[in-house]
Amino acid sequence: MTQTLDTPTQTPEQRAHRWFTGFEEALRARDVARAAGMFATTSFWRDLVSFSWNITTVENPGGVADLLTATLEHTGPSAFAVEEPPEEADGVTTAWFTFETAVGRGRGLVRLVEEDGETLAWTLLTTLSELKGHEEPRGPARPMGAEHGANKERRTWLERREQEEADLGIGVQPYVLVIGGGQGGIALGARLRQLGVPALVVDKHPRPGDQWRGRYKSLCLHDPVWYDHLPYLKFPDNWPVFSPKDKIGDWLESYVTVMEVPYWGSTTATSATFDEEKGEWTVEVEREGKPLTLRPKQVVLATGMSGKPNIPAIPGQDVFRGDQQHSSAHPGPDAYAGKKVVVIGSNNSAFDICGALWEHDVDVTMVQRSSTHIVKSDSLMEIGLGALYSEQALAAGVTTEKADLIFASLPYRILHEFQIPLYEQMKQKDADFYDRLEKAGFWLDWGEDGSGLFMKYLRRGSGYYIDVGAAELVADGRVKLAHGQVVRLTEDAVVLDDGTELPADLVVYATGYGSMNGWAADLISQEVADRVGKVWGLGSDTTKDPGPWEGEQRNMWKPTRQEALWFHGGNLHQSRHYSLYLALQLKARYEGIPTPVHGLPEVHHTG
Amino acid sequence: MTQTLDTPTQTPEQRAHRWFTGFEEALRARDVARAAGMFATTSFWRDLVSFSWNITTVENPGGVADLLTATLEHTGPSAFAVEEPPEEADGVTTAWFTFETAVGRGRGLVRLVEEDGETLAWTLLTTLSELKGHEEPRGPARPMGAEHGANKERRTWLERREQEEADLGIGVQPYVLVIGGGQGGIALGARLRQLGVPALVVDKHPRPGDQWRGRYKSLCLHDPVWYDHLPYLKFPDNWPVFSPKDKIGDWLESYVTVMEVPYWGSTTATSATFDEEKGEWTVEVEREGKPLTLRPKQVVLATGMSGKPNIPAIPGQDVFRGDQQHSSAHPGPDAYAGKKVVVIGSNNSAFDICGALWEHDVDVTMVQRSSTHIVKSDSLMEIGLGALYSEQALAAGVTTEKADLIFASLPYRILHEFQIPLYEQMKQKDADFYDRLEKAGFWLDWGEDGSGLFMKYLRRGSGYYIDVGAAELVADGRVKLAHGQVVRLTEDAVVLDDGTELPADLVVYATGYGSMNGWAADLISQEVADRVGKVWGLGSDTTKDPGPWEGEQRNMWKPTRQEALWFHGGNLHQSRHYSLYLALQLKARYEGIPTPVHGLPEVHHTG
Repeated sequence: MTQTLDTPTQTPEQRAHRWFTGFEEALRARDVARAAGMFATTSFWRDLVSFSWNITTVENPGGVADLLTATLEHTGPSAFAVEEPPEEADGVTTAWFTFETAVGRGRGLVRLVEEDGETLAWTLLTTLSELKGHEEPRGPARPMGAEHGANKERRTWLERREQEEADLGIGVQPYVLVIGGGQGGIALGARLRQLGVPALVVDKHPRPGDQWRGRYKSLCLHDPVWYDHLPYLKFPDNWPVFSPKDKIGDWLESYVTVMEVPYWGSTTATSATFDEEKGEWTVEVEREGKPLTLRPKQVVLATGMSGKPNIPAIPGQDVFRGDQQHSSAHPGPDAYAGKKVVVIGSNNSAFDICGALWEHDVDVTMVQRSSTHIVKSDSLMEIGLGALYSEQALAAGVTTEKADLIFASLPYRILHEFQIPLYEQMKQKDADFYDRLEKAGFWLDWGEDGSGLFMKYLRRGSGYYIDVGAAELVADGRVKLAHGQVVRLTEDAVVLDDGTELPADLVVYATGYGSMNGWAADLISQEVADRVGKVWGLGSDTTKDPGPWEGEQRNMWKPTRQEALWFHGGNLHQSRHYSLYLALQLKARYEGIPTPVHGLPEVHHTG
Repeated sequence: MTQTLDTPTQTPEQRAHRWFTGFEEALRARDVARAAGMFATTSFWRDLVSFSWNITTVENPGGVADLLTATLEHTGPSAFAVEEPPEEADGVTTAWFTFETAVGRGRGLVRLVEEDGETLAWTLLTTLSELKGHEEPRGPARPMGAEHGANKERRTWLERREQEEADLGIGVQPYVLVIGGGQGGIALGARLRQLGVPALVVDKHPRPGDQWRGRYKSLCLHDPVWYDHLPYLKFPDNWPVFSPKDKIGDWLESYVTVMEVPYWGSTTATSATFDEEKGEWTVEVEREGKPLTLRPKQVVLATGMSGKPNIPAIPGQDVFRGDQQHSSAHPGPDAYAGKKVVVIGSNNSAFDICGALWEHDVDVTMVQRSSTHIVKSDSLMEIGLGALYSEQALAAGVTTEKADLIFASLPYRILHEFQIPLYEQMKQKDADFYDRLEKAGFWLDWGEDGSGLFMKYLRRGSGYYIDVGAAELVADGRVKLAHGQVVRLTEDAVVLDDGTELPADLVVYATGYGSMNGWAADLISQEVADRVGKVWGLGSDTTKDPGPWEGEQRNMWKPTRQEALWFHGGNLHQSRHYSLYLALQLKARYEGIPTPVHGLPEVHHTG
């Protein structure tokens, strides 16, 4: 790097210190222009709730100026402090920092670059960690448990818990109703519990964890353990890398008990209406078959990306004599040994199900309707996640919490640029594997811009398989492969658009899930669903993720166009990380802390 | 310290390094005299299983020579390495180290002093951490969970678990039967599971945790959370300092699920006999009322110190018309509002029960039969445990595992010397409190040598109350106090030896628990129980802990005079820490690794 007299050699510490000193001065002076001028020409500021009461990314000095103009005065940021020695690599200085706002404390990560002799921010992440006066009772602030002294009004922990359970939803309304008790609902329920926000998690399944237990029997998590921790209670270090579904089910059930999450199983929400005047929902539920009306102030749909099975309407479904199952209802292969099964779809569930069927001596055919992105599980772990979520990362001091913030600090606009080289590595490493698949006629893709699995997940939540072995079955023909669209079912076969007839005793629709927006339409109304618009996706203008660019996952974990309606979900990583910001938004509203939302996006797509 | 030319100033690092170099040389040369000469005139070597296959402390160079003469050749110690920078204070250099033996890897702590210009060991702790070739599958060695690839023989985690449950005790015998499923049995069960030793934990209560749930309703742990972690899975940092009984019950139940501990509830062991020839036990159990014979190779009695209620035989117990309950069966105060209750005893349970009864408007009298040691809970936490088990200790890098080893490194012979000043501090800090109690006529003591609560616990496991508030009720007379021995019960009163009649609707016997040896007598035979001798106690020649000096807790976690019979128990700290050494001893036997036991003590006391 060229050094001039004006910019003598600085250590990363000095550089970060100078930048923060200048930034804080500008903010304290409410000098928006000066603060915005401290960002590089191409730059990104991602804020999780701390300035914007939103999850939003602004770009370049212009976007920074917009954000600060709207938020600086009431946010009152201060006390920026570098947390640990900043590091420099490839001309980028990376620094962890803490800061405060008028109402909370936050943590962030900045990447500084030199531009025209000035130190400027290239990426800035600001996140809210806690609300002042509402810190969680943890560590030195943990509760006593025993109440010392003699007290005639004393009630034991068990008596209080039993009273609470008896009152909840009857004498006492939850402030937040979380619909859906998978990892998302449970993680949020735990955070709200910790924050003292009265909440209730409801789920249609009898027990926590049944969401996993009920899936096809060979299912294991496709993400490794280091990526999957829930808040507060990490998996012990003997936990398997890829948790079997029943084991994760048991963990979730234990977690609900240990974290004292108020949870109703066997409970279905049948309708919800919002009274604008009262600022209150009326939610009709059936709990163990009995109708009940709940009146929460906030409703969170945590029914998940994989909650609403999508079964295409195909002529002949009524005449087909065999079984038809959506992948989410497929019990596993045991009953189908020696039979013929057609699996429609070629993503994760399709492969897992085909593999297990083949293992049980089923004659199985996969119908590929469009191209699929495949990565081998071990390559994904090593190349895709290893730097942040692995034993090596842990040994290098990258805790789960740090990894989450590093991950969150990479702006979605440029994330694909970081991803492409990783997938190029994988393509090279596993070249033979991909050769075999292509020779077998399998339609492969790497995402439209070659950015691979994680971008596909963020953009559309589908279109990939993390290979744990079943791809080889397709490559060598043990699992048969057919291509095309399904045009109809006969009494005993699946017919494709090229006329191919695939005899079948069972058809499995591994055809994915509907938009989370559909939950809102079913539960509330089409009008509200349309007002809220599409849920998930970044606006990348790629397949199933239409533009314009939005820059954040649509409607997830942040205010929507329907007051008091929220969406929560995603994988275990997202359930862990984003539940914090959703919980803080709900806590602020519960406490009456003003939450002026900046940058609520326009709605461009319904459904 | 005086420095001479022969002993130039050394850093703690140099001193520790020199000592270990010399020690390892002497051991490698099998030079017992030289190795023993590296210990101070008064010195202690405590070994947990690594040299002695026993839990034993030897004293002074003579004892070291005895230990090494018996164990050095087959132990083959090597690779002593100082783990982190040693520290020096008050002329003592303290160093953490690792080492190896022929069959395992260990960790230890040494305290070095200068004596006649030489660096000598004052205390040495050696512990076995793992067996070579049998390392636990944790961290980087954790299991994969998912088995990648296609495999027609694949069985899912759930299928394997179900098969295992169906076979255990019927088609497949456990190598270890653990009788008693409280924290002790569960912690040991978890460790054996991790080590791949087929084991089964049985308990008479239906669900894990019921051992706690069934106790009096106001019960909370008297030890703070930092002291109470189980192996592998720590309490989350929102866990209360003093866990309420039902909450710890839920934790234990979740722990059994999460750690996959093979556990049978509602199961009572009715008899056990050992076949010396076959090296196998025949244990008759009743599982949910159905008789079943188990044939384990090893039996662990983990029924606990608080497992066998001791109710004194008192004339008139058959004519008393009210209720009589041992403290362990007392349900709590709710049914006794407005009634008269006499609680016999003045230790932990007596105080807790009296306090709760008073809170529920019961007319309650405590009968003190002998003096009691009382410390205030917060003083005990701050002065007694704070340095090792607290948020402050954690912040200073003293993890639970380190604290356990530091604790274990203090030889029992001199432990009271470390304890006395702590209790003198407490006495001073809470002088007013003790004054009030004495003025109320309460008989106080501080242990026979003033060494306080923990020594009482180690010596006799009784004789104290950790005050959480009920002592004030006695001090100010809200709970009435009577003194003396109970000589008989009438139809409606308790009569003391001075003739005092205490009217009673309920008598609670807070009279403690029988020796764990009694379990062996009941289950196996009096002959075996007598051969094994007294369980618990150090041989301190104080009340309820007769001499001669034994130096370790009798028969706990180590071989007994009955082959294949073991005792496990104690508080959560001991259940956590010592379960490791017991598990390693069982694992070694399971794998056929030779385990020559050194220093099996003589039996001096039965019962």
